[in-house]
Amino acid sequence: DRPFVLISGPCQIESREHALSVAAALAAATRAAGVPFVFKASYDKANRTSLKGARGVGIEAGLAILAEVRATFGCPVLTDVHDVEQTRRAGAVVDILQIPAFLCRQTDLLIAAGETGACVNVKKGQFLAPWDMANVADKIASTGNERILLCDRGTSFGYGALVTDFRGLPTMAETGYPVVFDATHSVQEPGGRGTSTGGKRAFAPALARAALAVGCAAVFAEAHDDPDSAPSDGPNMLPLAWIPDFLADLVAADRVGKGRHLAAAF
Amino acid sequence: DRPFVLISGPCQIESREHALSVAAALAAATRAAGVPFVFKASYDKANRTSLKGARGVGIEAGLAILAEVRATFGCPVLTDVHDVEQTRRAGAVVDILQIPAFLCRQTDLLIAAGETGACVNVKKGQFLAPWDMANVADKIASTGNERILLCDRGTSFGYGALVTDFRGLPTMAETGYPVVFDATHSVQEPGGRGTSTGGKRAFAPALARAALAVGCAAVFAEAHDDPDSAPSDGPNMLPLAWIPDFLADLVAADRVGKGRHLAAAF
Amino acid sequence: DRPFVLISGPCQIESREHALSVAAALAAATRAAGVPFVFKASYDKANRTSLKGARGVGIEAGLAILAEVRATFGCPVLTDVHDVEQTRRAGAVVDILQIPAFLCRQTDLLIAAGETGACVNVKKGQFLAPWDMANVADKIASTGNERILLCDRGTSFGYGALVTDFRGLPTMAETGYPVVFDATHSVQEPGGRGTSTGGKRAFAPALARAALAVGCAAVFAEAHDDPDSAPSDGPNMLPLAWIPDFLADLVAADRVGKGRHLAAAF
Amino acid sequence: DRPFVLISGPCQIESREHALSVAAALAAATRAAGVPFVFKASYDKANRTSLKGARGVGIEAGLAILAEVRATFGCPVLTDVHDVEQTRRAGAVVDILQIPAFLCRQTDLLIAAGETGACVNVKKGQFLAPWDMANVADKIASTGNERILLCDRGTSFGYGALVTDFRGLPTMAETGYPVVFDATHSVQEPGGRGTSTGGKRAFAPALARAALAVGCAAVFAEAHDDPDSAPSDGPNMLPLAWIPDFLADLVAADRVGKGRHLAAAF
Repeated sequence: DRPFVLISGPCQIESREHALSVAAALAAATRAAGVPFVFKASYDKANRTSLKGARGVGIEAGLAILAEVRATFGCPVLTDVHDVEQTRRAGAVVDILQIPAFLCRQTDLLIAAGETGACVNVKKGQFLAPWDMANVADKIASTGNERILLCDRGTSFGYGALVTDFRGLPTMAETGYPVVFDATHSVQEPGGRGTSTGGKRAFAPALARAALAVGCAAVFAEAHDDPDSAPSDGPNMLPLAWIPDFLADLVAADRVGKGRHLAAAF
Repeated sequence: DRPFVLISGPCQIESREHALSVAAALAAATRAAGVPFVFKASYDKANRTSLKGARGVGIEAGLAILAEVRATFGCPVLTDVHDVEQTRRAGAVVDILQIPAFLCRQTDLLIAAGETGACVNVKKGQFLAPWDMANVADKIASTGNERILLCDRGTSFGYGALVTDFRGLPTMAETGYPVVFDATHSVQEPGGRGTSTGGKRAFAPALARAALAVGCAAVFAEAHDDPDSAPSDGPNMLPLAWIPDFLADLVAADRVGKGRHLAAAF
Repeated sequence: DRPFVLISGPCQIESREHALSVAAALAAATRAAGVPFVFKASYDKANRTSLKGARGVGIEAGLAILAEVRATFGCPVLTDVHDVEQTRRAGAVVDILQIPAFLCRQTDLLIAAGETGACVNVKKGQFLAPWDMANVADKIASTGNERILLCDRGTSFGYGALVTDFRGLPTMAETGYPVVFDATHSVQEPGGRGTSTGGKRAFAPALARAALAVGCAAVFAEAHDDPDSAPSDGPNMLPLAWIPDFLADLVAADRVGKGRHLAAAF
Repeated sequence: DRPFVLISGPCQIESREHALSVAAALAAATRAAGVPFVFKASYDKANRTSLKGARGVGIEAGLAILAEVRATFGCPVLTDVHDVEQTRRAGAVVDILQIPAFLCRQTDLLIAAGETGACVNVKKGQFLAPWDMANVADKIASTGNERILLCDRGTSFGYGALVTDFRGLPTMAETGYPVVFDATHSVQEPGGRGTSTGGKRAFAPALARAALAVGCAAVFAEAHDDPDSAPSDGPNMLPLAWIPDFLADLVAADRVGKGRHLAAAF
């Protein structure tokens, strides 16, 4: 029963300087809190709501920046991939490859990710039940790579809304793979702003506490120095200024989930 | 920031002896854990899935038993009411009147409950958004009675299923009224057994920890010495044997919700 | 395979003159279209979103007006009831008693309605699956009264929204009871206006055509001379001016549902 | 107001002979009914529930068979594509490229499809609202190609279930692009069989009649000589034996949608 891990960073790599600066703040805060840290950022936003959304720095520049973050701060790095070729390139650089939720059923992508030997974090599709993720994990594990994380980022709930079903965390954990709770995408409101996605970041800390009290291995939460000016996911990213108190609350919640007395149930 | 309250008891009053015996076990366990206790049981199950479901001992016998539980164990007692006349009779005896979820929009019932002067616990309809409960509370408060509790017992999620949206707890708390989380009805599977309702009690403890880590005032959880033989709600009630460990975990989770560092969000 | 029936009228009885005037327009339009007509109006809106919503003329005045509508236009009349006593009084006057969706699981109400001997139209709760209505119908039929109609008025779909699942009509028809499609409540947006319910009447005609093309026995659609000024359900009621063309379209759709060639499926 | 089009064929190309034989039956039935026909089949099932699901004949063999179907029966052909390279290859052969629902937000794929100049049929993601499809269409139209079809194949509704919201058809039609209703995938039960997807084909004809009575340009319905033995989508594909009666019913329903009197609403 090791402590939970924080996976955090800006939604996208805006520039080398920005990525390093956000990573520095997060590395300092997690070190102070005694929480293991994985840096996350995307080099390409491949499925923006609208064509007008900014897409990012591209894979070549992005992977170089991620490698520099890792070298500078000594933390593992994670990025998301969208096709087989990107997966092979990114898998040679990053510690954790992430499969986006919309792509979690694409067999070729899952197998390509598994074959890199990197750890693979698969987001549960908003259209899938938690128990459906066992089939998803099996596709990756068929490559012999069992370094798999299963991540909940909310489930479709009517139009323009997601809901987090916290029964999903123990259900996914029955696969034996560590479960991650994505606190900031879970509070998105898809399409809620017409040509972009809305969200309510104020709910993310409460949901992250809930996830750790239920019991999960890691919390994913995007963070930014100035979320309201960010090119993507602004409404749901956490301000860096929140992170120290956020971590203190999560450390307390993690103790509840890890130290529970009632062994007869989840 | 007082400690959370446990509202518990068997789904229905099966007999005087049974009610007293379950109350004794719960009173002892809550006293040992330092958790304030409210006894709950129903004298009539007015909306069973099927006509074949057992309905209970009736209002006259039921109210006498509830009064005896209160006298014996010194705890407040709660029961649910279904029409205006029952409300007046029960309101003269119990400490907390409960409005069932299906009836939470029935104006006459809400006003009758408010007029008794008793505390009123309203379950959020499975068909309502958390923010819709402000209008429900206003109907009760129009009587001058502001002793109102708002309780979440899950929201419709497709057919035969409920989901708990933990954003609902802080949303309902914005009314200023204390919020209750109903851990055992939230894991029901309505109609899931054809002529009765199914459920998965194993998830209830995890959801109750989540609710307290988010922050709520009370946990509602039905309990029974032998749930699998109970005449109603068997699949989701907790065995009495679970209660001591369940309470220990909730006390820890309550500290997370009450003592949180991040003041900028819920 | 008789033609479909239109159940229509204003949401509430606003006055004797208003009810008679709307009934006159609907009686003329249905006679011209060759469509059997049932007049519907409520004497009391017992579950308004907010306490500020108008409730109606009351049961005594309301039943007298309904009796006058029937005597004047020779059409059956329908009204909704909310408790056992109202059910007995209304059952002595109207042809069809309606059980509101929120109350469709209240055993005493269903049995009281059955015992009047009147036809009973039960709205499917927004929280129920279509197959759950078999248990609801059984409660009424236990009185020996099998004059039962099952009505779909939409199912909860996230917050503040309903969706109509047209698989529900043949599913409910498997009970053997005639199925009604409520076209105007199905396009409500519950709580969508803060202290009142919103809706989009423009979708109601298309959904009513769909229901008859699938196959149902009756269409329920509230209508009003000036819906935008109505005291309830304004956003979803149909203007009387739409009714002749609405009926012509439904007569055509009814022929599709009744005359279908593919016997192997619904 | 031209007649509706039927898009049909087996879920996957099982062999050259099988594809030609199913196409022959569908070509004959649609010609007899006076319904324009597009042949659909997949060369690769890229997102099967489980790794054990059969994937198909591959792109090279598949495109050759599709070209032969077109040459033999004189009908347009449609297939679905999963990445940019496949899109370019298939776009040189088929008349209509189809974007799978899970991939409907992948910007690069949409643009690659648009750039081929072929017609593009985009399935609405199960996680999207109908109005979100305007942004999807804009991505394709940014290439200058406005030969776009928008297709509804159901929306997530709890776990393991889809629901068709028929308000979605007129909502998507507001974009100006023709709207297709996918009757057989709409009755899928995702993940409903553990390692494969279930479904209830019996509902598909009723939903297709509903879609045409509401008003849409085309019906998509997979068909097979022996669905229960098919390697994919067996539970929801239609038997070829149903097709003649199915078409007769749809021709009647199409007249309702196309000839409607009520112009004031959808």
